[in-house]
Amino acid sequence: MSAADGPGYLCSMNALVYHGPGKKAWEEKPTPTLQQPTDAIVRIHKTTICGTDLHILKGDLPEVTDGRILGHEGIGVIEEVGSAVTTFKKGDKVLISCISSCGKCLYCRKGMYSHCEQGGWILGHLIDGTQAEYVRIPFADTSLYHIPETANEDAIVMLSDILPTGFECGVLNGQVQPGDSVVIVGAGPVGLAVLLTAQFYTPATLIMVDVDDNRLAVAKTLGATHTINSQTVDAVAEVMRLTENRGTDVAIEAVGIPATFDLCAAVIAPGGHIANVGVHGKPVELHLETLWSRNITITTRLVDTVTTPMLMKTVVSNKVDGASLITHHFALNDIMQAYDTFEHAAREKALKVILTSAS
Amino acid sequence: MSAADGPGYLCSMNALVYHGPGKKAWEEKPTPTLQQPTDAIVRIHKTTICGTDLHILKGDLPEVTDGRILGHEGIGVIEEVGSAVTTFKKGDKVLISCISSCGKCLYCRKGMYSHCEQGGWILGHLIDGTQAEYVRIPFADTSLYHIPETANEDAIVMLSDILPTGFECGVLNGQVQPGDSVVIVGAGPVGLAVLLTAQFYTPATLIMVDVDDNRLAVAKTLGATHTINSQTVDAVAEVMRLTENRGTDVAIEAVGIPATFDLCAAVIAPGGHIANVGVHGKPVELHLETLWSRNITITTRLVDTVTTPMLMKTVVSNKVDGASLITHHFALNDIMQAYDTFEHAAREKALKVILTSAS
Amino acid sequence: MSAADGPGYLCSMNALVYHGPGKKAWEEKPTPTLQQPTDAIVRIHKTTICGTDLHILKGDLPEVTDGRILGHEGIGVIEEVGSAVTTFKKGDKVLISCISSCGKCLYCRKGMYSHCEQGGWILGHLIDGTQAEYVRIPFADTSLYHIPETANEDAIVMLSDILPTGFECGVLNGQVQPGDSVVIVGAGPVGLAVLLTAQFYTPATLIMVDVDDNRLAVAKTLGATHTINSQTVDAVAEVMRLTENRGTDVAIEAVGIPATFDLCAAVIAPGGHIANVGVHGKPVELHLETLWSRNITITTRLVDTVTTPMLMKTVVSNKVDGASLITHHFALNDIMQAYDTFEHAAREKALKVILTSAS
Amino acid sequence: MSAADGPGYLCSMNALVYHGPGKKAWEEKPTPTLQQPTDAIVRIHKTTICGTDLHILKGDLPEVTDGRILGHEGIGVIEEVGSAVTTFKKGDKVLISCISSCGKCLYCRKGMYSHCEQGGWILGHLIDGTQAEYVRIPFADTSLYHIPETANEDAIVMLSDILPTGFECGVLNGQVQPGDSVVIVGAGPVGLAVLLTAQFYTPATLIMVDVDDNRLAVAKTLGATHTINSQTVDAVAEVMRLTENRGTDVAIEAVGIPATFDLCAAVIAPGGHIANVGVHGKPVELHLETLWSRNITITTRLVDTVTTPMLMKTVVSNKVDGASLITHHFALNDIMQAYDTFEHAAREKALKVILTSAS
Repeated sequence: MSAADGPGYLCSMNALVYHGPGKKAWEEKPTPTLQQPTDAIVRIHKTTICGTDLHILKGDLPEVTDGRILGHEGIGVIEEVGSAVTTFKKGDKVLISCISSCGKCLYCRKGMYSHCEQGGWILGHLIDGTQAEYVRIPFADTSLYHIPETANEDAIVMLSDILPTGFECGVLNGQVQPGDSVVIVGAGPVGLAVLLTAQFYTPATLIMVDVDDNRLAVAKTLGATHTINSQTVDAVAEVMRLTENRGTDVAIEAVGIPATFDLCAAVIAPGGHIANVGVHGKPVELHLETLWSRNITITTRLVDTVTTPMLMKTVVSNKVDGASLITHHFALNDIMQAYDTFEHAAREKALKVILTSAS
Repeated sequence: MSAADGPGYLCSMNALVYHGPGKKAWEEKPTPTLQQPTDAIVRIHKTTICGTDLHILKGDLPEVTDGRILGHEGIGVIEEVGSAVTTFKKGDKVLISCISSCGKCLYCRKGMYSHCEQGGWILGHLIDGTQAEYVRIPFADTSLYHIPETANEDAIVMLSDILPTGFECGVLNGQVQPGDSVVIVGAGPVGLAVLLTAQFYTPATLIMVDVDDNRLAVAKTLGATHTINSQTVDAVAEVMRLTENRGTDVAIEAVGIPATFDLCAAVIAPGGHIANVGVHGKPVELHLETLWSRNITITTRLVDTVTTPMLMKTVVSNKVDGASLITHHFALNDIMQAYDTFEHAAREKALKVILTSAS
Repeated sequence: MSAADGPGYLCSMNALVYHGPGKKAWEEKPTPTLQQPTDAIVRIHKTTICGTDLHILKGDLPEVTDGRILGHEGIGVIEEVGSAVTTFKKGDKVLISCISSCGKCLYCRKGMYSHCEQGGWILGHLIDGTQAEYVRIPFADTSLYHIPETANEDAIVMLSDILPTGFECGVLNGQVQPGDSVVIVGAGPVGLAVLLTAQFYTPATLIMVDVDDNRLAVAKTLGATHTINSQTVDAVAEVMRLTENRGTDVAIEAVGIPATFDLCAAVIAPGGHIANVGVHGKPVELHLETLWSRNITITTRLVDTVTTPMLMKTVVSNKVDGASLITHHFALNDIMQAYDTFEHAAREKALKVILTSAS
Repeated sequence: MSAADGPGYLCSMNALVYHGPGKKAWEEKPTPTLQQPTDAIVRIHKTTICGTDLHILKGDLPEVTDGRILGHEGIGVIEEVGSAVTTFKKGDKVLISCISSCGKCLYCRKGMYSHCEQGGWILGHLIDGTQAEYVRIPFADTSLYHIPETANEDAIVMLSDILPTGFECGVLNGQVQPGDSVVIVGAGPVGLAVLLTAQFYTPATLIMVDVDDNRLAVAKTLGATHTINSQTVDAVAEVMRLTENRGTDVAIEAVGIPATFDLCAAVIAPGGHIANVGVHGKPVELHLETLWSRNITITTRLVDTVTTPMLMKTVVSNKVDGASLITHHFALNDIMQAYDTFEHAAREKALKVILTSAS
């Protein structure tokens, strides 16, 4: 049965539901309905799984409650819009942003949607998400984007989260410039999204550091000029060697642990930029006793998705191949199997997995 | 006897000489002579003492060796220039920058004079300094500045170090904007220089934090809208109260210890800028587990003095009263007494002390 | 009779109505009612007259049709809001922006509200305006601003148009920096708003050029360091003299005729910025045969009012005295007399006139 | 005979000498000698001819006097350095910048070398230039650049002028961003240098306009996404069609006549940037009566070559193929023939010609 079968309050759908640490199920849930005049209901066409979903399943985010539908990425088709929605209508193909933006608050007016007073990252977190047949999107006019007819849909899904995250938190905050030397620490999907979008600014040197040789090999195919397996090589020494002992102009942390942040701080050149992308669970030690005089900049950021229109143009004009981050395809119904693959990413050589609805 | 009395190698002068931790003397030293064609010899007219000089005297900077003449600030008159100096001539009144810039290396060409490959902060550190009757200035064309006839000379001395330090490391790096809320932690001379130059950008709120009520009272007269004595008040709570629980747009650290850095990190608003000015001797704990998602920027900087021409214009046009930081005047010959006053700054209510040569 | 007397469709109010070139009347019109869920109805408390209103009355803007209520500035109290308005409620004191912003289109999302696809400058232009007892404000959530209780209401009215126009089109686009030399051509209300807000960035020299000695005298009291009456003095020569033949770092055109633009182009220093604020009716001759190699920047802009929140903070914290631009006060009912005064600004020594409603 | 044969004042060399409008000769001239301690003498290895040289030969630059050696581009080997030169020594391979920078004046300290008070564009203009066996380079430390051993020398020659001109005046001033639409008017060597370096920032659309089909075909191979022959197509209409009637984000003028500037102004989108690169001989009409409200920016610039170190990195790392602009190679002795080819560029399908010394 689907939402098309009858009035909304009678309908049900399938969804990936969180039931506390370690527990999830693909099960029946009521089809979402409009709650506010600014809402839209989107029938999911494609979605994906994020590393953050695994963190939720580990219990790292206690604000996520039992019964929550996970997922904050995807594309779909508008099923219904609230009375205040003016930009979208039933039948429109849309990209869902991982960040909901009310468009009115002080933060949204500044382009800092991540800190929207009513939105921010709420999908699949504080409200039900996109790993389902239908999803309710609040503030639809300012949280959805039209998809051009000719676009590669798999690539477009990467615009929900991973490409803007890599670009905004890593590349823009890192201020990558033509001719720069850049080190990216972490070759997971987000680190690789940094790698792809860093090339928008034509750095001369793009060094990728990870502990997984497969991911480093992928990084090579996606534009890394050098790769370092930090389990087998002294990464600090190697980065210094590759930069003639100057250090890098930009260091981008895409893991989220103290050791990788330390690496960035150890190799940054005077005047350089350290851009933190990773989600950290612990404090790091910042060596101000040496860094105070080195004219460096350190940034943090939760993705705002304020660059989604710009990134959409780069994807549609084939300036970046978002689909190159996708390693596995599943039917949406097979999402439990997709989770299994994604949870064993190293074994499966998995980066992003795409789930496509049958309808 | 002075340099004018005969050939350089016979001449001597008086100078403040470092003789290892805790030891200094106002004693006779050879008058400096030209060593490179880009050098100038400057007869010191006014100089001052910096907190860094006290650090050297404590032995905190082991690279400073016995016999070194201290001091990196001052104004004077050109006595002699090397053959490659084209911008200055004997008799010119000049400001001495605390940073020597060769003008040729990659860093100098980028405006990052602090990291000049041959210069940077070397005066009164790696070469003899300005607390003397004469000083040799390397790279004179790019390390000295003409002083307009009408300028207040005491105010101009503040352009050697303290005003550019406060402005570049604090205000520019902190990106102070009209209407902003700004907290400055530390109301010593450098913190007060931040306070003065922050007003170039018309913030709405300027909160000064210190543990010395006298300095806070001075801060009030220099433009602070609020002051907090962090020994008697919970500074974090008070800053949050003053900013309607939003935190400040800018937080400027002007002390150099973990507690003051922590304060900045605790009160910074999402999207805000923490500018470190203080000289740190230990690492700090950076709470990335909360800050990772708050879109903040942290900067460090050794002053470049690249804004000296801009600041000169603001001082000469009376847009900032550099002399307001000066509390005590001494004859240059009385520099030992001046050090005593400066070393007991709280007791003496001392900020900057000015030493003026008799000649 | 007022809107409070009965159902909206029966109500009438008084308003200043345009009836074709040269004709206007203070007459009865239906009280506006909500048309869209994003609308608000505001009871006008204070409004003012803009030079643009005079242009409309001359017939220079043929898109303004007979029957249009003029006015695009003012403050008031919310009378009623549409169902989609979430930021304001009946009774709120609000500032009306001269620019209506939908908050959703590509331009609004970039902060370029002037080019909003459904809004922009429409008030008192393409829809009825604020010189009336009531006004309908479209896109209320993103076109109105809360007024703090303690604010000077006269000063706040200046935030509708004149302060953001001077600041955005003149000061921000001109990139005024501490220590700069700035020439402002035109000492009418907008030029004086440039003068006030330029001081947010502490230029060293602020030269005001006009042909009206009274306005130049006002400019002196508002912060101009020099004034030039270009009818009695060779303005180009005098600006060059005041800048030691370097020209000015910034030149701001606030009149809107070729001669004043030419003056800006004639005095701009290499590397300088010419910011056009004036509304032009004719082309100008741009001397690229000399300017091509002078590294200059020329900007144009219709005010976006994107800085209104920032400017509100500067007004509320008394960093700028918006009310200093106001020379005359009238009751709203006396608006015909106020127009007469404003139309004879030189004779009346009028800058901004404030109209206050009796209710 | 060469400079190595004996004392400088006895030596002679061959050089391309200007003898008034229409007249030039490859003839014997004294080999240059050091005049200032900051000079270097460079033995030319490769040089090229610039469109500006043709302008000089037409008599368009009357400040160029009879007897002047032309040329402001090239690479070579240091023959001798003055006593104040510290960065280079005999035998070093160097790139000669078309702009001489003293490194000391206010403009040089700001990175605006084009307006250096003693330098700027003087080579082959106000002092003898590079179309010779030897050239004297003033301010050598700040006007020459080391060439890495592995670099493609032909490509490096393009760094003397054409690549920094296209990049600084066109791409940087135009503020090209990822995803942008860009129109470049003029597909001569400079316009093509804009095309190459615009790609550093990954625009989505790169439209090239010219009247020469061969150059447009070259533009296609160098990255243009669309080309327009403005003699056979209505260029304004076509650019608007290609941009869905929005106009382009950036318009770059690389010809230097009113018609091409007009085209840029006609197609620029609201909020867009017009970057003038061309050398103009006449004023243009600027339609402020429409542009005043369109939030546009117009820039002019004489190349500063301040980005040469950055561009050097992009060339050496093969991020841009400077040699792709070179169509013809000649021996330096055959420079008269090379001029003939370059003067008939359309007939010869010539872009840049490279002249290589035999020694």
